[in-house]
This record gives sequence, structure tokens and C-alpha cells, in this order.
Amino acid sequence: MRLNNIITLTTDFGLSDPFAGIIKGVMLGINPYLKFVDISHQIEPQNIFQAYYTLNFSYKYFPSGTVHLAVVDPGVGSIRRPILVESGDYYFVGPDNGIFSFIFKKEPPVFSSPFKRESGVSVFELTENRFFLPSISNTFHGRDIFASVAAHLSRGTEPSEFGKPLSNPLILNTPEPDIQENKICGEVIYIDRFGNLITNVSADNLCSFTGKLQMKIKDLNISPPCKSYSDAGESKLSSIFNSWGLLEIFIKNGNAWKELKIKIGKKVQIFKYKI
Amino acid sequence: MRLNNIITLTTDFGLSDPFAGIIKGVMLGINPYLKFVDISHQIEPQNIFQAYYTLNFSYKYFPSGTVHLAVVDPGVGSIRRPILVESGDYYFVGPDNGIFSFIFKKEPPVFSSPFKRESGVSVFELTENRFFLPSISNTFHGRDIFASVAAHLSRGTEPSEFGKPLSNPLILNTPEPDIQENKICGEVIYIDRFGNLITNVSADNLCSFTGKLQMKIKDLNISPPCKSYSDAGESKLSSIFNSWGLLEIFIKNGNAWKELKIKIGKKVQIFKYKI
Amino acid sequence: MRLNNIITLTTDFGLSDPFAGIIKGVMLGINPYLKFVDISHQIEPQNIFQAYYTLNFSYKYFPSGTVHLAVVDPGVGSIRRPILVESGDYYFVGPDNGIFSFIFKKEPPVFSSPFKRESGVSVFELTENRFFLPSISNTFHGRDIFASVAAHLSRGTEPSEFGKPLSNPLILNTPEPDIQENKICGEVIYIDRFGNLITNVSADNLCSFTGKLQMKIKDLNISPPCKSYSDAGESKLSSIFNSWGLLEIFIKNGNAWKELKIKIGKKVQIFKYKI
Repeated sequence: MRLNNIITLTTDFGLSDPFAGIIKGVMLGINPYLKFVDISHQIEPQNIFQAYYTLNFSYKYFPSGTVHLAVVDPGVGSIRRPILVESGDYYFVGPDNGIFSFIFKKEPPVFSSPFKRESGVSVFELTENRFFLPSISNTFHGRDIFASVAAHLSRGTEPSEFGKPLSNPLILNTPEPDIQENKICGEVIYIDRFGNLITNVSADNLCSFTGKLQMKIKDLNISPPCKSYSDAGESKLSSIFNSWGLLEIFIKNGNAWKELKIKIGKKVQIFKYKI
Repeated sequence: MRLNNIITLTTDFGLSDPFAGIIKGVMLGINPYLKFVDISHQIEPQNIFQAYYTLNFSYKYFPSGTVHLAVVDPGVGSIRRPILVESGDYYFVGPDNGIFSFIFKKEPPVFSSPFKRESGVSVFELTENRFFLPSISNTFHGRDIFASVAAHLSRGTEPSEFGKPLSNPLILNTPEPDIQENKICGEVIYIDRFGNLITNVSADNLCSFTGKLQMKIKDLNISPPCKSYSDAGESKLSSIFNSWGLLEIFIKNGNAWKELKIKIGKKVQIFKYKI
Repeated sequence: MRLNNIITLTTDFGLSDPFAGIIKGVMLGINPYLKFVDISHQIEPQNIFQAYYTLNFSYKYFPSGTVHLAVVDPGVGSIRRPILVESGDYYFVGPDNGIFSFIFKKEPPVFSSPFKRESGVSVFELTENRFFLPSISNTFHGRDIFASVAAHLSRGTEPSEFGKPLSNPLILNTPEPDIQENKICGEVIYIDRFGNLITNVSADNLCSFTGKLQMKIKDLNISPPCKSYSDAGESKLSSIFNSWGLLEIFIKNGNAWKELKIKIGKKVQIFKYKI
């Protein structure tokens, strides 16, 4: 994989404090050719699940060789390990708290020799402190470890130079839809700025459900998937397969989240329509 | 016009979701030399008027050859057309919903032959799907069509290669001030972060109104235009010609919007003072 | 000092309005090789103190030769002077309202001859309007003066060419901790996104306070400094020396600011524990 000087950032730093700016400064000091793309700095404080979905929905739209840096790190300064993941076209740098574990669900990590690249996913624990800032705080490893490592990596340092292979990265237990013959039970996993409710039910999950469907959330009926947002009926609870291939519940020219007052984790039920 | 690898972004994606990051990733995959400037991602969801003013107030501060990408797109997936506009020093890429129509008010679009560049504004409907992403969703043309086209354009593809000329782009009906001999009736068209109320009345509109003026909003008197914010009287409803040449109503060290509790569209009346 | 084409931005422009985008456009028109890093655009409107701390905590994480542009400018259009500061590894461009005065507290400004660089900090009043935009508004010097000067500076124009040396820049009166033999009285100077309360008491201030400490805010006891956030007791008012070396008050997995409902300026008392 050829590096491309692009580093993306996914953090819970917010946009008022200077934290995101500081880590960019640190990285530019190591590699002045970097280009940064902010994926989000508005992850809810310490919400690892939101960071997981945000990055999972985004990482593959970047060119091969991109380094994805993620810092949502409630365990900073504790025994949680700092890691670097190499997977397919991408690198990932951040805490070992499950934030990148969508990668491991697709393909389990393999032992990677420092001398021979093997196929699949490699994970390294960041132990070589010559790639860290000279002084390590207990509260901001995003700056002192992760940014510094990501920038050195972007300059071409081999992943295996940053530490020893790690075979048991933490895997986040994310909800999967329960698929039965006549019924699928999924749940809302992400709510976007427009108040659209994104579920964990994919178009693939529903492909055997030919014909009419009945869908419910909070005992309310949801109209079957539309072809476009504007195709939906005004102020009706509608659905669509969204740009990530997931079933999304929305209200045309409205905000389904505000209307239904639900939270992440709310169940959605889909029944094969009985004829 | 020589392209300059700068693409600006004006969207209603917000800054929490990964949408803006994703379209930057797509564009960098097509043109790795791009520089992005975010104009705003905080346009109110689907508020085409706010996007229109935001971009109209901004586009000309960028170097010649800049591509302005705008995605506020309530009609995504419907029959609304995707367009590319070439006008003077700039390119514009986005939906044909009036978002760029300040351009057409200055100079109407002309038919543009693919072989001969003509003066004035050219508009093309984006029909050539070889410049789109391979798979087009029904919900995110910002990613699948507009970003991809903007990036190809920035690499030097001729505008006419993206589709056929279009002579009737949608023109947004924006409020113009009503100018009479002794009275101008304008309205608030934009409210900024500081709570300053920006009206559609320009310094030019008022140039024949020499001498003293009387100005009113919500039956409250507004002090005549100051030379600077700090020149105004403390806690008084004041006015100034702002950096876009428009009459702006403000309260020194305060927030006129919070104080007056008004909305976009509120009328402002200016009378020639009777001596 | 060699320039590096990096310009950081610290402003109260917010992220909804196009102001930050506009000044980047202006700068790219002067120097197309620029890289921007946003430190913050969410400084509270006209809060010079917040900008002062934000920049003071950030500027030294950037590579040598970085230009720090700051625009929190309640006095725009009045007699307040526009300035350029050269100090150690960095340049600073903005209004003379104290926003950069952390620099002057470390080392007082010296007279700088245009012909001979002297050690220490140099300050210049921006008077040479050939480096400004052709037309200067009364409301947006960030665009018309500061951005334009920062971009010209980044291209290698000598600081002394922008105006005449200035020996009396405004110095902001920021609170210092009151250090007595058995007691330190500090105060909260910054509250971050996580609701952590950052005080003006440094690790150095406390180095003579060996042994146990008693700390109080609002008559509530604060636990003595932890080694990491996760070391703290659940829902207890805890403390840590943060990544800037300052005493910070926090609640593990909580938000101290929301819990205590305090404001910037709240006193914190630290007593040597009597044995």
C-alpha cells in the first residue's frame, strides 16, 4: 500500500477547544506535506459506539493509503493499549477500545512478522516511544502518542516499527439485526443531523422479504421503502435504503427524531406481509 | 479560466455527521492536489435561501478558477437536475434548485457550444455518468454526483463534457427592496452569529437619501448608519453599512436578534427625514 | 526563522456564517501554497480572554515559522491598532487588544530596526496599506487587513515592511494565582467541551506543597491530583494536572461544569494539609 499524506480525524474534541488544532500542529511538525480531512470532532464525549459507526460508514470513501486517526479515549492514561491497525487499503491509529473493531469483524487480525507482510489485518501495540512526543501527558494521548505516530506512519515508517504485533484487540459488541423467517427485528444505530433514524437493517437483510412489508417503530407504522426522499408522503413516517445501504426512517421535510422522541437503540420491527 | 485546485463547500450536512468528510475523501481520490475551503456546513437543513445568500456573499473572495460546490438538496433523487455553472472567474456545481441563481440575475445563461466558449454564463446539466461514482444512491448525490463532478472538473475536464447545455436554470425569487421617492422598504435577509440583522438594502439604494434618515423595524427606531460598531451608543438599536455593502442592524456589545426576537423576512422601513 | 506556509486561525466567527471561509479565500488569492489549521472559530463573541487562553495553550505545538492569525475584534473600525508580532518561532497577526499578550508577559517587546533583527519580541503596527485589500470596510478587518497581511507575510515579506515598530502593545490583565506559604488561591480560567474546569494553578506552583493537600471549590472538597482520568473515583470531584501542566477539576465519566454550575473566574483554594 502506498501512503498518500492524507490523515482523517474522528474525535470527541468538539470545535470550540483547541485540541483538534493542536494535534494537527503536532502532525505538521513531523510531516509538512500532510492533508487533513475532519470526519467529525463532534462525537458525543466518550461515545465509542458513535465513533465506531461514524468511521465505519466513512473510511472506505478515502483513497488507498489514507491514515484514519481516531481519538475517543475515555481510558486515556490507564492500561488500555494504543494501537495501529493495517487493513486492506487503510491504516488506523488510536486507542484499543473497539473504535476500529468493524475491521476485525470482517477479517480477524493475523500475526504479522516484521519481515514479511501477510494478507489480512495486522494490529500493532504502540510501544516504541521514540515515535511519541518527548513528554507524555496522562490526559492527552491524542496529541502525545496517536498524532505523533500517525504522522510518522504517513512519512513511511513501517507499521511493525511502532511496536509488537497484537492478536487480541478489543472488539465492540454492536447490535446485529435478529433475522427470522417472517420477521426482522433491528434497531436504530445512528441519528443524523436531519433527524433521520438509521437502522442496522441492510438492503441485503431484506432481500428475501419480497412483496409488501409491514414496518413498525414505537407501535407506529412506517411506510415501505421509497425511491427518494421527495417521493414520500408529506409528514408520514417513511423509509428508504440510504447511501450506506441501510434502512433509514425519515419524515419528508421534517425531523423524525424530534417527532418520535426516540433514542439510539430503539427497536424496529419488519414483518413479511401476510397475503 | 485557469483552474486552481481549490474547491469550496457550502452544505447543510452539519459538522457532527461524516457527510462532509466523505465527499472530501471522494474528491481526493479523483484529484489528490485539491485544497478544500469550508464556507459553511451549518446551513439550516434544506434552507436553499440561506445557502444562496451565504454563497453569494462569499464566492468572489476566492481566487479565479475556484470551484464552488454547494449541496443543499431537498430534491435529491427526484427529477431536479444536477448542474454545473461557469461564470466569469468561477465554477459552481450542485443541484438546480436556485442555489446559484444570484449568478443568473447578474447575467442570463447563454447557450454554450461545446466547441466555442462564449462570453457570459454557461450552464450544463450533468448527464455524463462516467464522471459520477460507479453506483448512485438515491439519497446522497453530494457524494455520488456533485463531489465526483467537481473533482473531475478541477482536474481540467471541460465543462461541456459533463452534459448538455441548459438554458432555463431555476431562479430563486429573493426579496428586493421596494424603493420609492421618500421611502425604502427592505427586509432582513440574513442573521449572523453575532445576532446582527443583515438587510437587503444596499449603500447604493440609499445614495439618493442624503441628509438625515429615519429607520424603523418592529416600530422601533434605528439610529442612522455609524462609521464603526464601536461608534454606536451602548445598548441602542444601531445600523452600519457592513462588509458586503448592506445595511445591517446591530446592538453594540449585544445581540440584536435575541433582543428583538425577529425572523428572517422582517420588514425594515427607511424614510427620508422631513426637514 | 523560515516561513512554512501554515496559518492558524483563532476567531469568534462561528462555523455557520461564511466569514472564516472568506478570509481563507482572500489568503489563497495572495499565497496559493497556504495550509490552514483552524484552532477555533467558536470563541464566544468578543471574548478576548477566551481567545488569549486558547491561543496561549496552542501556539507552540505548531512548527517553527507558523503564522497565527487571530480575529476577536470588538474594536474593529475604531482607533485600536492592527499589529504583527514576531516572537521566537512564530508570527502573530491581529488586533492590538491583548489577544497575543501572553507573548509580552514572557519577554517585553523591543524596538526593532527595519535593518537589523534583534533578539526578543518585535511588534509592528500595520500601517502599510499596500498589503491590505484595496477597499477597507469598517466591520471586517479580519478580511481586509489581517488576512491580507498574514498571507503577504507567509510569502516572505519582512515584518518591518508592514509598518512601524510599536513598543507599547496592550497587555491583558489575566488572573494569576495568589501563592502564600500554606495556601494557594487560584481560579477557573477555561472550561472545555468535557466540562473540565481548568485553573490557573500550575504543577510548578504546587511543587513546594509536598504531602497531602486539601482543595476546595464552592466549599466542596476536591480529591487530590490523580494519575489519569480513569484512576478517579466514580462521580467524585477529582483533579489532575492536565496536558498544559495546569490543575484541572473533573468528574470521571461526568461533566464537572454542569454539575457545579460555575463560571469562569470561580475561585479554587488549595491548603497545605496540617498533620
